[in-house]
Amino acid sequence: MKHLLTIDDLGADGIREVIKLAASFTEVSERQIPKVPALRGKTVATLFFENSTRTRTSFETAAKRLSADTMNVAVSTSSVSKGESLRDTALTVEAMGVDAFVVRHSSSGAPHQVASWVDASVINAGDGWHEHPTQALLDCYTFEQRLGSFEGRRVVIIGDIKHSRVARSNIAAFTALGAQVTIVAPPTLMPPSLDGWPVDVATDVDRALRSADVVYLLRIQRERMVEALLPSLREYAMLYGLSNERLALLQDHAIVMHPGPMNRGVEIGGTVPDLDRATMVEQVRNGVAVRMAVLYLLLGAGSELRGSSAQVTPAVSADETDVDASALAAEAGKAHV
Amino acid sequence: MKHLLTIDDLGADGIREVIKLAASFTEVSERQIPKVPALRGKTVATLFFENSTRTRTSFETAAKRLSADTMNVAVSTSSVSKGESLRDTALTVEAMGVDAFVVRHSSSGAPHQVASWVDASVINAGDGWHEHPTQALLDCYTFEQRLGSFEGRRVVIIGDIKHSRVARSNIAAFTALGAQVTIVAPPTLMPPSLDGWPVDVATDVDRALRSADVVYLLRIQRERMVEALLPSLREYAMLYGLSNERLALLQDHAIVMHPGPMNRGVEIGGTVPDLDRATMVEQVRNGVAVRMAVLYLLLGAGSELRGSSAQVTPAVSADETDVDASALAAEAGKAHV
Amino acid sequence: MKHLLTIDDLGADGIREVIKLAASFTEVSERQIPKVPALRGKTVATLFFENSTRTRTSFETAAKRLSADTMNVAVSTSSVSKGESLRDTALTVEAMGVDAFVVRHSSSGAPHQVASWVDASVINAGDGWHEHPTQALLDCYTFEQRLGSFEGRRVVIIGDIKHSRVARSNIAAFTALGAQVTIVAPPTLMPPSLDGWPVDVATDVDRALRSADVVYLLRIQRERMVEALLPSLREYAMLYGLSNERLALLQDHAIVMHPGPMNRGVEIGGTVPDLDRATMVEQVRNGVAVRMAVLYLLLGAGSELRGSSAQVTPAVSADETDVDASALAAEAGKAHV
Repeated sequence: MKHLLTIDDLGADGIREVIKLAASFTEVSERQIPKVPALRGKTVATLFFENSTRTRTSFETAAKRLSADTMNVAVSTSSVSKGESLRDTALTVEAMGVDAFVVRHSSSGAPHQVASWVDASVINAGDGWHEHPTQALLDCYTFEQRLGSFEGRRVVIIGDIKHSRVARSNIAAFTALGAQVTIVAPPTLMPPSLDGWPVDVATDVDRALRSADVVYLLRIQRERMVEALLPSLREYAMLYGLSNERLALLQDHAIVMHPGPMNRGVEIGGTVPDLDRATMVEQVRNGVAVRMAVLYLLLGAGSELRGSSAQVTPAVSADETDVDASALAAEAGKAHV
Repeated sequence: MKHLLTIDDLGADGIREVIKLAASFTEVSERQIPKVPALRGKTVATLFFENSTRTRTSFETAAKRLSADTMNVAVSTSSVSKGESLRDTALTVEAMGVDAFVVRHSSSGAPHQVASWVDASVINAGDGWHEHPTQALLDCYTFEQRLGSFEGRRVVIIGDIKHSRVARSNIAAFTALGAQVTIVAPPTLMPPSLDGWPVDVATDVDRALRSADVVYLLRIQRERMVEALLPSLREYAMLYGLSNERLALLQDHAIVMHPGPMNRGVEIGGTVPDLDRATMVEQVRNGVAVRMAVLYLLLGAGSELRGSSAQVTPAVSADETDVDASALAAEAGKAHV
Repeated sequence: MKHLLTIDDLGADGIREVIKLAASFTEVSERQIPKVPALRGKTVATLFFENSTRTRTSFETAAKRLSADTMNVAVSTSSVSKGESLRDTALTVEAMGVDAFVVRHSSSGAPHQVASWVDASVINAGDGWHEHPTQALLDCYTFEQRLGSFEGRRVVIIGDIKHSRVARSNIAAFTALGAQVTIVAPPTLMPPSLDGWPVDVATDVDRALRSADVVYLLRIQRERMVEALLPSLREYAMLYGLSNERLALLQDHAIVMHPGPMNRGVEIGGTVPDLDRATMVEQVRNGVAVRMAVLYLLLGAGSELRGSSAQVTPAVSADETDVDASALAAEAGKAHV
């Protein structure tokens, strides 16, 4: 695997491999010194054409825990604002010595384009309404930690499906692993066609909630009201929000997920995120481990490693982190044979 | 000590301990390689809701010299601007693996709130008109380096006392250590009530200057004129500024302090900062050492250390920095018993 | 050498030394772990009063590969916007512990001023219309890699000579090394006087291109049209751009250089940058190596090193990077004797 552009690139086996590796990296993150030298000498550049401190910081933290260097290309102040093309920006940044790009862009397919131009690996960190694969991976990891198996589980995704790359990636990932997905949305926020979408559509929110193992709430963007796709936040909250009252409909074991940032009181009741069944904080924590796993699979594993162990076990590191890094490398190496 | 929110949290003994430790870290900062591995594996996040490159950079430099990782959450481009609550922002950042937050906010009490929500340590880096404790600590350290004992010394603070967190923290710290504080301000920039303030109030600037051991000048914000609290910068400079002419009133040993950034020609005469009695550059330098001391006391010392020395003496570090780190750890450990 | 403010500071021998050292650092950059511990413990601060992600990132990458720490002072959000003087900003940043400043400013001479105030080294990263010496150095290195000797070569620089610090630094560097420089520009973008400029002036673009070994294209700023110095980009492209058609005029071995960011379709034909004879990506790559060389000459070499090898060979580094660092240090030490 050279790039991570869509969930389909991974397939069910790939998703499971990322989750398994993420579990190892969760253990690393809980150490006194939460670092491994696995990607020492590698450089990860974040190329964000939309602001997202949360996602960017998560990737940067993951890279640092693997001992990679990071390069943050803040696009709002970069040459892009001087009229440089995406391609020239990517080639320029790569020429400074970059091993992986983490790309966020408002246009669907921009990370694919970057991948076609550069030799480095490319990770899609969200492109337009298209995909956001690492979000889906951290959600799958969180799902598995909470509920174990995916087989036969019901996931209900509620909100602005039409404009949501999170929905698209999560539908692909959850169904690949064997869960059933039901989507619920106001008619104006439903995609014009659902041909080929492996989902059920529900219109009765309460009924959908009663059968859910996972309730996945999407963030409502205020700009949807400016576009007249929503009458008001209050009406949305009443019709589609997981209010404190609607909680009574949920099965005891059902969990509530949200990709953040949340509008408390809109798509999610004011105190719902503080319940045990809410997973938002775990999702963020797991995001770092999942991104470590993805960076490791793209940059640290594979043929290079089998040829030489120099990269993962540099001479300076006589400390305890090494042992596990070697183990991880061995494991990842096997998985890729 | 888990958090540093106000000077009162520390008390006189705590202030003295920080100063003593800062002196050790000043020595570290003067080495060829000004680093110790004391906080290796720890992550310090700066969460600044007001811009302050100076203070943020000082904390980041302090963290790096202790071998901690830093995470800069630039709030202007973060989820806060998407309507996320302070609490959700703090919990999200913490979930990525943060050991200490350095918080600046325009609302008094915001760092206290963050401290009530997170498990990590919280350092108040300035909250509204309330407190800015590390500024007061670096000022105390600078004071002691220049004048030795605090007992019976007179500090004259001149300027916008009403809106100044620096004034509040410094009054608390200087008086805790035994100095006497006199404040001087235009009536519009004096707090509405001084009940409970351990200070004298002077109206005759020249007379106050004659008896001062320390003249502490506060920055005049240009927005005070927009609010009609000040008629003009020129009038302020004439009535309250430490002009080149007024210097003649000072005792030979008196020093001039300013927290920066300075308005040369307004609260301070154009060439006054270049005199030997001016301490601004020392204050900035001492700021790094004091913040190293605070971070070390919050994250590096205490029970963890006494149980195991693994954290301060990782196997990789056969270099000379270790020795001193162990010594510091031992010293800090003792101080906390 | 303490500062790098202009190309004249270096002279021909200095330029050659930088190029030679850059070649060594290119080799470092191609390693699995592209780092040397040469500047471990040093801090390089970027002080950019104009945005330039490209140049700033190049310097930061260079510093990190030498194991220096970096401090990015984002001036737009710093005390400068609060009315602090350039001098106080520089002294404040230096007091936090800075060994070198990399300064970009819209005023010619600003880096010289900073150099007169601080003890740290200062590198001019572009000042007004004056100079941008590291750009010229990376261009010389790229020139030499492609064409070998400078003696008797013809460089044709086309574009906005009047406002270009790149043109001024490159003219100084190329001619110092023995090349001949011809400039071509619309009359409105030609300096008012060329007294003392060691260049030829051409008005016939096509004829100049026929004899060129190097065509150096300058970026056209859109603001020149607002200032009525240019009628339109289309007219500029037609009269002065290196269009796909004009390529036929070039000698087989002639190369095309551009400092970036490019306006494809304006000063350079849409697909010209993708040809083998175009060097833009190499220029960016070489920029990192050249800046490593400059930082190393200013901070790592010279008398300190000859006295002790402790700095370049810290006890922690038993890894292979050391060997080369020592060699480089020896080489640089000799060069400076």
